[in-house]
Amino acid sequence: MNDVRTILLHRSVYADNDLEADALREYLKSKGTFVVNLMSSPGAGKTTTLTKLINYLKDKLRIGVMEADIDSDVDAISIAKNTGVKSIQLHTNGMCHLDAGMTKAGLDALDISDLDLVFLENVGNLVCPAEFDTGASLDIMILSIPEGDDKPLKYPLVFQKSDLVIINKIDALPYFNFDLEKCKERIKYRNKNATIIPISAKLGQGIEEVGDYFINKIKCWKE
Amino acid sequence: MNDVRTILLHRSVYADNDLEADALREYLKSKGTFVVNLMSSPGAGKTTTLTKLINYLKDKLRIGVMEADIDSDVDAISIAKNTGVKSIQLHTNGMCHLDAGMTKAGLDALDISDLDLVFLENVGNLVCPAEFDTGASLDIMILSIPEGDDKPLKYPLVFQKSDLVIINKIDALPYFNFDLEKCKERIKYRNKNATIIPISAKLGQGIEEVGDYFINKIKCWKE
Repeated sequence: MNDVRTILLHRSVYADNDLEADALREYLKSKGTFVVNLMSSPGAGKTTTLTKLINYLKDKLRIGVMEADIDSDVDAISIAKNTGVKSIQLHTNGMCHLDAGMTKAGLDALDISDLDLVFLENVGNLVCPAEFDTGASLDIMILSIPEGDDKPLKYPLVFQKSDLVIINKIDALPYFNFDLEKCKERIKYRNKNATIIPISAKLGQGIEEVGDYFINKIKCWKE
Repeated sequence: MNDVRTILLHRSVYADNDLEADALREYLKSKGTFVVNLMSSPGAGKTTTLTKLINYLKDKLRIGVMEADIDSDVDAISIAKNTGVKSIQLHTNGMCHLDAGMTKAGLDALDISDLDLVFLENVGNLVCPAEFDTGASLDIMILSIPEGDDKPLKYPLVFQKSDLVIINKIDALPYFNFDLEKCKERIKYRNKNATIIPISAKLGQGIEEVGDYFINKIKCWKE
């Protein structure tokens, strides 16, 4: 169970992360591997959501996972154990984000030659990951009910950059003072093109809708 | 209600933040103002906890609050409205943390000449704020139940640096898979000297214990 590899990443030597990110996107296109950069606060439910999502998608697509954290390998082990897909742990050497060079190093270690879809679970943080283009094909985020409906007001950039905003833990709505409609308005104020899908990863609610969103995105990306 | 001032901060011009932080601590000692640096993930309940705590402490101590965020002034307005104490909003100019120079600029704007205790609500983030000494007299953090009991494994530094770890939202324990004893062990593994106080800010549980902790800390600091 504990046979998940851990890769220690170092800051990219390239000065221009944006150029490197664009080059990585071109490379991924040529390889036919779609990479999703998943951002959220610590504890918003990234790993639980990925586990449910991968179990829905794994008969339709060949999937890999890269779990980035400052320390520990609990997430990569959990994904490997609960989904059976190829998974590696990335350690960011204390840094609060991944850049394109670090993402490329992770993809090389994972080996994407037999993969259609790779999820990159970024460091749990609403600030820094949004500031660095990882070179992923798509940026998405999870906001969870206990965090509060005011987060689009406080962390503008991550909402602006996310094509999909998953609102997780809707099963906890009765226990928290969270106005779902107001939150959706605030997300749209930051990013009018964002797709918003409320889910409960714990109960499996909304997982198929998120899965079908990715199937459609990959189909369009390949055409 | 909307008359809270917002201060835009810039990165410190000083090269050595640690020196500047030590100098700020000396300055605060000479002024008799105890500054608490409060760190947590987004949505862990910093503002709600501060509101309850200040209402418990405000007859005993003269209190001020600095709310740091990337954007918005909802927290400073909320604190001013719900506690009546002096409160200002700090904007970090996109940065994910505060350093000692930024903290000093905020304290100057707040005016601490008539204050015994200032709470600095740092940017919601478990990574960057822990990496920069703000010059505060005490570092504390809030972890909340919905974030999960594995956070001390993933974010070592913020737990190592925090003298007090408040575990908030214990009223939500029945709805989440959170092992309180295991979490306490993991906190102690990172920082054996940490004080740990479980609370429910929403229900007011544990607020007096946290308040008395500060009263005692300030008393010892003055001696």
